[in-house]
Amino acid sequence: MKIAIAQINPTIGDLPGNAQKILETAQQAAAEDARLLLTPELSLCGYPPRDLLLNPTFVEAMNIALQQLARDLPPKLAVLVGTVEENTKAHITGGKTLFNSTALLEEGKVKQIFHKRLLPTYDVFDEHRYFESGLQANYFTLDNLDIGVTICEDLWNDEEFWGKRSYAVNPIADLAILGVDLIVNLSASPYSVGKQHFREAMLRHSAVRFQQPVIYANQVGGNDDLIFDGRSFALNRQGEVMCRAHGFEIDLVMVEFDEVQRDLQLSSIAPEYESEDEEIWQALVLGVKDYARKCRFSKVVLGLSGGIDSALVAAIATAALGKENVLGVLMPSPYSSEHSVSDALALGENLGIKTDILRIGELMQGFDNSLAEMFTGTEFGIAEENIQSRIRGNLLMAIANKFGYLLLSTGNKSEMAVGYCTLYGDMNGGLAVISDVPKTRVYSLCDWLNRNGEIIPQNILTKAPSAELKPGQVDQDSLPAYEILDDILQRLIHNYQSAAQIVAAGHDPTIVDRVIQMVARAEFKRRQAPPGLKITDRAFGTGWRMPIASNWVGVKKAYQTVNVTAPTFVQ
Amino acid sequence: MKIAIAQINPTIGDLPGNAQKILETAQQAAAEDARLLLTPELSLCGYPPRDLLLNPTFVEAMNIALQQLARDLPPKLAVLVGTVEENTKAHITGGKTLFNSTALLEEGKVKQIFHKRLLPTYDVFDEHRYFESGLQANYFTLDNLDIGVTICEDLWNDEEFWGKRSYAVNPIADLAILGVDLIVNLSASPYSVGKQHFREAMLRHSAVRFQQPVIYANQVGGNDDLIFDGRSFALNRQGEVMCRAHGFEIDLVMVEFDEVQRDLQLSSIAPEYESEDEEIWQALVLGVKDYARKCRFSKVVLGLSGGIDSALVAAIATAALGKENVLGVLMPSPYSSEHSVSDALALGENLGIKTDILRIGELMQGFDNSLAEMFTGTEFGIAEENIQSRIRGNLLMAIANKFGYLLLSTGNKSEMAVGYCTLYGDMNGGLAVISDVPKTRVYSLCDWLNRNGEIIPQNILTKAPSAELKPGQVDQDSLPAYEILDDILQRLIHNYQSAAQIVAAGHDPTIVDRVIQMVARAEFKRRQAPPGLKITDRAFGTGWRMPIASNWVGVKKAYQTVNVTAPTFVQ
Repeated sequence: MKIAIAQINPTIGDLPGNAQKILETAQQAAAEDARLLLTPELSLCGYPPRDLLLNPTFVEAMNIALQQLARDLPPKLAVLVGTVEENTKAHITGGKTLFNSTALLEEGKVKQIFHKRLLPTYDVFDEHRYFESGLQANYFTLDNLDIGVTICEDLWNDEEFWGKRSYAVNPIADLAILGVDLIVNLSASPYSVGKQHFREAMLRHSAVRFQQPVIYANQVGGNDDLIFDGRSFALNRQGEVMCRAHGFEIDLVMVEFDEVQRDLQLSSIAPEYESEDEEIWQALVLGVKDYARKCRFSKVVLGLSGGIDSALVAAIATAALGKENVLGVLMPSPYSSEHSVSDALALGENLGIKTDILRIGELMQGFDNSLAEMFTGTEFGIAEENIQSRIRGNLLMAIANKFGYLLLSTGNKSEMAVGYCTLYGDMNGGLAVISDVPKTRVYSLCDWLNRNGEIIPQNILTKAPSAELKPGQVDQDSLPAYEILDDILQRLIHNYQSAAQIVAAGHDPTIVDRVIQMVARAEFKRRQAPPGLKITDRAFGTGWRMPIASNWVGVKKAYQTVNVTAPTFVQ
Repeated sequence: MKIAIAQINPTIGDLPGNAQKILETAQQAAAEDARLLLTPELSLCGYPPRDLLLNPTFVEAMNIALQQLARDLPPKLAVLVGTVEENTKAHITGGKTLFNSTALLEEGKVKQIFHKRLLPTYDVFDEHRYFESGLQANYFTLDNLDIGVTICEDLWNDEEFWGKRSYAVNPIADLAILGVDLIVNLSASPYSVGKQHFREAMLRHSAVRFQQPVIYANQVGGNDDLIFDGRSFALNRQGEVMCRAHGFEIDLVMVEFDEVQRDLQLSSIAPEYESEDEEIWQALVLGVKDYARKCRFSKVVLGLSGGIDSALVAAIATAALGKENVLGVLMPSPYSSEHSVSDALALGENLGIKTDILRIGELMQGFDNSLAEMFTGTEFGIAEENIQSRIRGNLLMAIANKFGYLLLSTGNKSEMAVGYCTLYGDMNGGLAVISDVPKTRVYSLCDWLNRNGEIIPQNILTKAPSAELKPGQVDQDSLPAYEILDDILQRLIHNYQSAAQIVAAGHDPTIVDRVIQMVARAEFKRRQAPPGLKITDRAFGTGWRMPIASNWVGVKKAYQTVNVTAPTFVQ
C-alpha cells in the first residue's frame, strides 16, 4: 500500500484555502497511486487556531468545509484530515466542548472520526482550553491493514524514553496491544533548534519498543511566532528512517507499506542540515516569508543601524522576500559613528536592497526644545537616549503606514531578556525576527552566512556592539560580555537554574544578581513586544506568561541557596 | 465557633510580604477569639502567579515560607493558607507536577493539605498549565466540626444552576454526601460587572440544594490586568447572606457558627453598590492604585486631549493616587480645536492636578521635512495622522522616563476593538486603564461621576468625539455611532454571534461586515497593547488569544448564514 504525506502550509482560519490545498495534494497523490494520504494536525483550519475555536460559527464552518472536502476528494483515496468534532455530551458529562480530531474521508464521506488523547497544555500550547481528551485507542482498517491513528502529542509520552510519564496513558502502547499493523501521526510540531533530531530519536525508541512502523506527518509554515518545520518522516519496525520530507517547505512524499514483510520500505530521504546555523536560518527565512504573506504584505522596511542585528534581519528579509521588496532606512544621529552609515550602506549594497538616509539630528533638537523647560536642571540620560530611538521608530512606522510595508524589528533575545531596548522605539514592528536569537547566535549565524563570501560586511562583525545613543557608548558599558550574558540567560530561562546554581557554574554573583533583576524588570517591555519568531524551547511570547506587577526577584535572595533540579518539558 | 475571613491583597511572588499580611491578620483574628481563619486562594504567592510556578526555586521557596508561617502563627488559631504542593508521583502516574492547594496550619505545624479539584482553563485562567486535579473530597475536623474545604472553581459546577456540567464532578455534592457541617471556599475570583450578584446567586443555589452553610473568602486587589473585588461572604443553610466583606479593599470579617443550630449566624453585611457605574469606578481606581504600587510607582503621567477618555482616566488616577501624584500633559497640534485646550485645563482644575502644555506643531513640521522627499507626491493620510499621535507618545514616554512616572494610556474598548488608535502613539503606557470599558460606558461613568457636581467639564461630555488628527475630523467619519458600534461589539465579542445573527438583531449588514473586518484587522495592535484592566467577561488581553496572520474573516461570508447558539462560560 502506497501511503502519502501531504506536508502542507495552511493559513490559520482559511478553511476554503486549506481545503483546496488538501484537495490538490490529494489529486496529485491519487495520480501517483497512493491509497492513503496523511495531512497535518488540524490541517483544515491550520495550527494553532487559538480562540477562533471559541466561535461557534467557526466550528460550524469547519464542519461544512469538511463535508464538502469529503465530496470533492478522489473517491479511491482515503484521506486523514485534521479537524475538530463537537463533544455533544459535554453538557451532561462535563468537559470541553470540542475534540481535536482526525477525520477519515473516503468515497465521498466522512467515514470515521478519531480524537486526540493527550492534550499539551504548556509552553505555547493551550489545548485544555479548547479540547476534551479522547478516551480510546484509534484505528481503522484499510484493505486488510489495521492502521492506528494518533495526533501529535499522543506519541510524546513514552515513559521509557523520557524516564517519566507526562500523561497517564500512552496511546502507542494501547495500539500495539490491539495489534495494529502501522501507526500514523498527524502533527503540528513547532520548530526549535535540534527538535527534529529529538523527534526521530523519540519515535525510533517507540517504533523499536512496540515493533510498530510509524509515519509522522508534520505541518510546515510560519504562523505568527511559531515556525513549523515540516520534515515529516517514516520509520520502519526497526526504527530506521525510511522516508523524510524536506524541511521548511511544502512537500508530498510517498512511502510503501509492504504487506508481505508487514513493514515500510525505503523511500526518499531529505538530508539533514549541516549545522544548527543553517537550520535556524531556514526557519527564520520561512517565518518572515509566511508572516508577511499571510498578513498580505509584499514589502518590508527596517532600520539599518550599521550593527549586526539589523544586518542579519536585512539578510533574512532579503532571502525571504527578494531584494526588491526590502527597504533599509539609515537614521544617523549626531552620536552615530561614521562607520554606522558606511557599514549599513555596504550591507545594503551586498544585499542589493534599496536604502534611504534620514538624519534625525534636527528632530532630536526639536524634542529637546519642546522638553527644555520641563527638563530644566536634569542630566542627559535614559530619557534622552530613548527619544532618539522613538524618533526612529516613528519615522519607520510613518514609512510603513504610508507605503503599506511591514516593519520588521531587529532586537535579539539577549537584549529582550535584559530590556536593553526601547519600547516604542527600536522594538517597533509587526514581527520581531530575531527576538528568540541570543546575541552569540546572531554572530554565528552571520559567520555561517559569510561562509562563501562576504554578505555581512566584516566591520559589522568585528566592531564593538553599540546602541550609539550617546557619545562613545558601547553595549558592554551596561551589560556583561555577551558570552557571559548568554550563558547566564540560558541557565536562567531555559534551565530554570537558581542564582546559586548559576554562581556555582562559575559566574560572578554580582553579575548574576544584576542579570536576574534586569530580566524581571524588563517584563513590561516584553509584554508589548511584537510576535517574535520562536527558535528555542523557551521563547518570550505566547509561551512565556509572567506577571509584571510582582515582587519575586525582590525576595529571591532569602531563598537563593536552595538547590533544586530543573523540570523537563515535553514537545 | 468564630470563623474569620482575611480578605488580603497579596503581591504576586512576594512570599515574605504576603506571609506577613496573613500573620498580622491572624494575630488580629486571634485577638478577637476567632478559632479558624480563611485566606484567599494561593494567598501565600498571590493569584495568579503564572509562570513563576514553573520555577522550581519559587516552589521550594513557597514551601519554606509556609513552614515558617506555620511556626509564626498564633497556636490556637487554625488558618487555611493558599499554597502549592508538589505532585511527587507525577513522573510515575503522569500529570502536572503541582497541586493548587490549601494548607491547614495549626499549633505550629502544617496539619493537612487539600488539593483543588476543578481547574479553570479558559478566559484568563491557565490552571491545567501548572496543576493536576485533586481526586478526593477535602475536609478536616476542628472541635467536632467537620469542615469541607474547596478552592475557587470547585464551587462553580452546580449543574442544576448552570443547566449543564462543566466538569465531571461536583465537589460540593461530594462533601454533602460526606455530611460535613460547613463548606469553606478559598477564592481568587476576578471582578467583572455584575459578578458578585452572580456568585451569590450561584452559591445560594448550592447552599439550599445541599443544605450547607458556605463561607467564601475572596482575594482583593489588582494584579496586572485582573482586579479582584473581595466581597467575601457567608451564606447560611437557607442561602441567606449572613456576612459580606467590603468590595475593593482589604477587610477582616467574622461569622459565628452556632453549634446548636448547626448554622451560621447573622454578622456584618457590607452594602451592595448602587449602580454598575459605581462598581466599575471602584474597580478601576483599585486597578490603577495597585498596578502603580506593586510596580513601585508613586506618580503617573497621561496625555490630556480634552476628550472624554483621557478625562475619565485622569479622574480615576486622581482618585487612585491623589491629585499631587497625577500630571496631565496637553499636546495640542495645529489641528486641535481651541476647546481641546480649554476643556483639558478646566478638567485639570476640577481635579486639582498639575498640567503642562507642549505644543507639537514644530515637531510635526520636523517630521514632515524629514520625510518630504520620500513622501513626494503622496496625500496627507493615516501615516501623517499617526505621526502626530507618535510624537505625543514620545513626549509622554520621555517625561515618564525622566521623572520615573508611570504612563497611563487612555484608549477605550470600542477603539481597541476596531483599531481606532495609534500603535506606539496614544496606545503607549504601562497600563491601559479603560481598555475594557466601551465608549458608551465611558459616558455613563462620567455622568455618574458628575452626579454631585461637575468633575468632568460639561463640554467634554457634549461635544462630538474627535481624534483631531486632521482638520474638522470627528470619530463618526470613520466609525458608526458608538451606541450602534458598542451593541455590535457586545454581540460579536461577548455573545459570539455570527454576522447573520447581528444583522437579524436589526443592524445594517454593511456596517456589521465592516466592524467585523476592523476587529480582525486590529489584532496586531492589540497584541502590543499594555495590560488593560479587565471589567467584563471577555477583555482583550491575557484571556483573548487570537492569531494575527489568519484569514478567517476573509472566508466568513461563505458561512455567515449559519445559525448557532453561543457557548456559556463559567467563572
